[in-house]
Amino acid sequence: MDKLFAFILLENLTVAHGGAVGVIIDGCPPRVPITQAMIQQALDRRRPGQSDIVTPRKEPDTAEILSGIQDDLTLGTPIAITVKNTDQRPGAYDEMAVKYRPSHADYTYRALSGGGRASARETIGRVAAAAIAMQVLRQQHPQLEVLAWVKSIQHLEAQVDPLTIDAATIEGNIVRTGDPAMVEPMIDHIKSIRSQGNSVGGVIECVIRGCPPGLGEPIFDKLEADLAKAMLSIPATKGFEIGSGFAGTLLTGKEHNDPFVMEGEKVRTTSNRSGGVQGGISNGEAIFFRVAFKPTATIMTSQQTVTSDGQETELQGKGRHDACVLPRAVPIVEAMATLVLADHLLRQRAISSL
Amino acid sequence: MDKLFAFILLENLTVAHGGAVGVIIDGCPPRVPITQAMIQQALDRRRPGQSDIVTPRKEPDTAEILSGIQDDLTLGTPIAITVKNTDQRPGAYDEMAVKYRPSHADYTYRALSGGGRASARETIGRVAAAAIAMQVLRQQHPQLEVLAWVKSIQHLEAQVDPLTIDAATIEGNIVRTGDPAMVEPMIDHIKSIRSQGNSVGGVIECVIRGCPPGLGEPIFDKLEADLAKAMLSIPATKGFEIGSGFAGTLLTGKEHNDPFVMEGEKVRTTSNRSGGVQGGISNGEAIFFRVAFKPTATIMTSQQTVTSDGQETELQGKGRHDACVLPRAVPIVEAMATLVLADHLLRQRAISSL
Amino acid sequence: MDKLFAFILLENLTVAHGGAVGVIIDGCPPRVPITQAMIQQALDRRRPGQSDIVTPRKEPDTAEILSGIQDDLTLGTPIAITVKNTDQRPGAYDEMAVKYRPSHADYTYRALSGGGRASARETIGRVAAAAIAMQVLRQQHPQLEVLAWVKSIQHLEAQVDPLTIDAATIEGNIVRTGDPAMVEPMIDHIKSIRSQGNSVGGVIECVIRGCPPGLGEPIFDKLEADLAKAMLSIPATKGFEIGSGFAGTLLTGKEHNDPFVMEGEKVRTTSNRSGGVQGGISNGEAIFFRVAFKPTATIMTSQQTVTSDGQETELQGKGRHDACVLPRAVPIVEAMATLVLADHLLRQRAISSL
Amino acid sequence: MDKLFAFILLENLTVAHGGAVGVIIDGCPPRVPITQAMIQQALDRRRPGQSDIVTPRKEPDTAEILSGIQDDLTLGTPIAITVKNTDQRPGAYDEMAVKYRPSHADYTYRALSGGGRASARETIGRVAAAAIAMQVLRQQHPQLEVLAWVKSIQHLEAQVDPLTIDAATIEGNIVRTGDPAMVEPMIDHIKSIRSQGNSVGGVIECVIRGCPPGLGEPIFDKLEADLAKAMLSIPATKGFEIGSGFAGTLLTGKEHNDPFVMEGEKVRTTSNRSGGVQGGISNGEAIFFRVAFKPTATIMTSQQTVTSDGQETELQGKGRHDACVLPRAVPIVEAMATLVLADHLLRQRAISSL
Repeated sequence: MDKLFAFILLENLTVAHGGAVGVIIDGCPPRVPITQAMIQQALDRRRPGQSDIVTPRKEPDTAEILSGIQDDLTLGTPIAITVKNTDQRPGAYDEMAVKYRPSHADYTYRALSGGGRASARETIGRVAAAAIAMQVLRQQHPQLEVLAWVKSIQHLEAQVDPLTIDAATIEGNIVRTGDPAMVEPMIDHIKSIRSQGNSVGGVIECVIRGCPPGLGEPIFDKLEADLAKAMLSIPATKGFEIGSGFAGTLLTGKEHNDPFVMEGEKVRTTSNRSGGVQGGISNGEAIFFRVAFKPTATIMTSQQTVTSDGQETELQGKGRHDACVLPRAVPIVEAMATLVLADHLLRQRAISSL
Repeated sequence: MDKLFAFILLENLTVAHGGAVGVIIDGCPPRVPITQAMIQQALDRRRPGQSDIVTPRKEPDTAEILSGIQDDLTLGTPIAITVKNTDQRPGAYDEMAVKYRPSHADYTYRALSGGGRASARETIGRVAAAAIAMQVLRQQHPQLEVLAWVKSIQHLEAQVDPLTIDAATIEGNIVRTGDPAMVEPMIDHIKSIRSQGNSVGGVIECVIRGCPPGLGEPIFDKLEADLAKAMLSIPATKGFEIGSGFAGTLLTGKEHNDPFVMEGEKVRTTSNRSGGVQGGISNGEAIFFRVAFKPTATIMTSQQTVTSDGQETELQGKGRHDACVLPRAVPIVEAMATLVLADHLLRQRAISSL
Repeated sequence: MDKLFAFILLENLTVAHGGAVGVIIDGCPPRVPITQAMIQQALDRRRPGQSDIVTPRKEPDTAEILSGIQDDLTLGTPIAITVKNTDQRPGAYDEMAVKYRPSHADYTYRALSGGGRASARETIGRVAAAAIAMQVLRQQHPQLEVLAWVKSIQHLEAQVDPLTIDAATIEGNIVRTGDPAMVEPMIDHIKSIRSQGNSVGGVIECVIRGCPPGLGEPIFDKLEADLAKAMLSIPATKGFEIGSGFAGTLLTGKEHNDPFVMEGEKVRTTSNRSGGVQGGISNGEAIFFRVAFKPTATIMTSQQTVTSDGQETELQGKGRHDACVLPRAVPIVEAMATLVLADHLLRQRAISSL
Repeated sequence: MDKLFAFILLENLTVAHGGAVGVIIDGCPPRVPITQAMIQQALDRRRPGQSDIVTPRKEPDTAEILSGIQDDLTLGTPIAITVKNTDQRPGAYDEMAVKYRPSHADYTYRALSGGGRASARETIGRVAAAAIAMQVLRQQHPQLEVLAWVKSIQHLEAQVDPLTIDAATIEGNIVRTGDPAMVEPMIDHIKSIRSQGNSVGGVIECVIRGCPPGLGEPIFDKLEADLAKAMLSIPATKGFEIGSGFAGTLLTGKEHNDPFVMEGEKVRTTSNRSGGVQGGISNGEAIFFRVAFKPTATIMTSQQTVTSDGQETELQGKGRHDACVLPRAVPIVEAMATLVLADHLLRQRAISSL
């Protein structure tokens, strides 16, 4: 089935005095309360220049709501939001216009597709759409929380309990890790790698708490399947695992199974290696999953590549790129999870017995 | 966008003299050559009772083509295929009908959905549909190969080169691993675990060779995103990674990037940590990925659980279950990959310049 | 957006001892009460041989529910229903297998598509699916009624008031017209035309009473647009009009507009030339529309045509065809309207404020 | 199946210094040649103020391409086009903000939906999208023509031969009728009706010449079904008929059927009451259909209505409305037909044998 809460990302918009990116949301229910501030708050967590370990580009990333919201309420019509570019320096990309950046989408987009796409600024639209999706969810499930944090930067791993971690801890440090002990080492490592003209990746973990049971469909549109797709659609991701994940393959069934118990009237599990979904459907326990991000492809050292007319050459990255995207990717992981939940909530409403 | 090569799985069909499962394929192009034998060959790799390390149920799993194919050619109309159940023993499930099996979908399906679904026999339909999808792909790309194998069973890991592994090696052993040295240890381990009434999981790896470049879409329907969703829609899966995957997060950008070189007229990469996709689109290199399968939930030892009317109780699995599903899951991983490729091939055709 | 209440028709199914047709319904909510008798009752109104003005083929058209319904309740899983063919005489079609029947789909299906499709028995699946859709609607809107009748046969036109016509009047005559005065003339005309080896068409009118207000979407998926598509998807249809329709183009705005008045708390209109929809959305008034059916293409007199290998020839229809399809098309028009309503009801639920 | 050539209309956009409307096209193939002039030329035929029988509002309706097209070629990414409003006088609508206009969508949108939608300026987006769709079609079928004209204004009916009518004749008169003899009477009638504060409707006829055979699908997505839906999605439409249409119900089968003949290697029909489609699929003959438009709902005389808080009242239309929308609706009918064809062409490409 097609998405009920659907959206289209717009990139390389040409607007008055420059460029912009945007998003169109189609299928948002009417009368959902939304303010520009809600969207802006979400974008501020993603924007460049917010700390000294991310790209120094200065983009305020101000959301403009062009349609679909009136008097801070959705109308049920398509919602258009744009965000202007203010600190683009096209000159920095001249060389890359003819040389394919290794492990970047330059080759596949330019040579194999029609030529469009390639900026991570598209993720602005995902974050803006999710700010609205979250309001759709909260209208019906006010306790629902979606929280992500940096679980690891290269070999540095944070210890975080998904059941108790809170937003303040994550937002209280510029790496957005959930483990105070790892803040310094992670910051130092990113700065050190950057000073070498190199880059690093890592893992982001995400928890959904207060998720209504019964979301997801049993065959193809399993909740974990749609989360997996959503996460692998984020640029630079290489892996997804839910609950026990790949490590769960090292346990036996006896060790891995989650026993059921009654907690008052409620069916609960005493452990949660399932990660809050069983057979594709949320069971009311916390949903948690992890996403692998490869090291940033654009690095400031010389690499072997080819030009668009088939000449072998070398390329040294220029510009102001993140040596580690993870701190800014945390809100994007939360955004994609939120969008999946909103879509499945609308589906659940459609088929729920009255 | 909705699927172009779409299918619906049918479970718990009531047909003359018993039950059946089936699949409806909608969107298959006309005039694709298909024989019952092609479908049967695919199903035979998935069926129970094929060796002494899988469930001993005796199901011939014979495919019956009910519509959409005439004179061994598709008609362009919906294709219906059914497979009768012959060795179901409903008595074995009586206890499970009131007690929720831990880490199984009993609770989410019965208490939270409408009551349907729960048999792994649904995967028959995926395999049958993929046998047809493969012919759609081969018509246009005769060299295309999709090969999966058991990469690990619990802690036992196979060493396999995705570029050179062949079907004969995999099919030549009952575990369907790609590493002859691991055949014996894996078989012994499965048998030992089974004798303890326990179960194990592991990892299946899959390679797509000869994939046409340009498949996939740049934003949401990235090829790796659709593969991730397809894999996480298989029962018992907990993770997906492509190319360097989670291990790639331990490398720096310098180590991880795949340099471009020319090979005659062709753009190639000297390494392939990207796993054959860049920015969501196949680049012509081999696509390879790994899928984590948790240990089988149904085990033959006593576990704590609750009944559907809220009583705490114990449940000991009965019946003839696989202590390790991986040997039979290999063709299912291949099937889901094939179905994703067929869908993206049809999309590519729709928008290709002439 | 894709359908929420979706279905796929299956034709030319090969089942034990012969052929069958069927339907797969995907997206039906769980726990909707359905019995085989409800489906059978709907099919009985469509089946051949029910009176002496329709084709004399003797098909009991018995519905078999193969999946998705248990203990007379839907499960939320795909519902499969099949109906066996019992009175097919393939010999009658030998000549038509090489000669294209004029104004029939033989040429477009065989020469331009892959070869499939061509029997009006596919409409069985529409009627069966609608029997289930009606239960989905009635669960929430027990007063909802969908009634169709024969408005005209060639030049013979019935006078019927859509607000007061009842099912008993329509089912009380074999033509299924709503005007007792026209029963005899219509029956006589059909018999006379049939005796000449000729055929006739006509118009079916349909009313939806008790439709909840607010169904439909304001741009593309207008309720009247989806009704138009549904009706033009029925074989042999050539036109659709809602409310005042084509005749409304002869009025001025002053004559045509429907004044609003209050009826207690309720907004009503004093006339209903809008036909119960305004701007694509139901307004709570009766929805009524008309559908044009061309005369049956297969006639028992000689016609000029060509063979599939490009030879000019003549063809005289054989077999047992309806000289007028309208009496049997009445339940099909109702079925398609019901399916559109069910789909829009599920959409409305998805986006309704709580 | 969902649309392959898909688009979303944006209304009531708030942009710098005022309002705008727009359209997002998703699914357009890459490398299709498009200039702003092509889009503008299409919009100029729809815009207000173009002659003295249409609304005198002065809207230049200038298309701005914001994304998806570079160097006059599509990129394969979403195409965003906006058109600024320049002559809106909100004051004129104050009274209508509280009183529901009879036979207008005010009541259904404001009371039953979330409050959005209601301006016929949304059709700008349809026309702009179709200008691009036409280039997709012409790339592959350069001879394809889609021509519409005013067939009737109230009781005044034009005589036009769909096989020979040309664009110059239609564009050569401000009514856009295809019959030179009816130009004067129609203009006089519209002016006379307008001077009475009243309005009229009529019928638009459309022909598609040079349509490739084989477009359309045999069951639900019949070409005529998708055309019917597209036409009934245009504001103010009440009916659709293809080929012989409602009048065809007055013929017998013998009179109605289109005999097949060979014309060289080509299968042709000697008449074309089928209207170029048989069984849902184009047969290569000219496709022609008619669309009924009701008289404009907003009239300049007093009418009975209610307010949004349930008071009965009277309303006299103000503002600068078309007394007859048909001259400006001609390009909208062509646009919707073109969009349906483009979508089906992409579908045909996806499943065509190679």
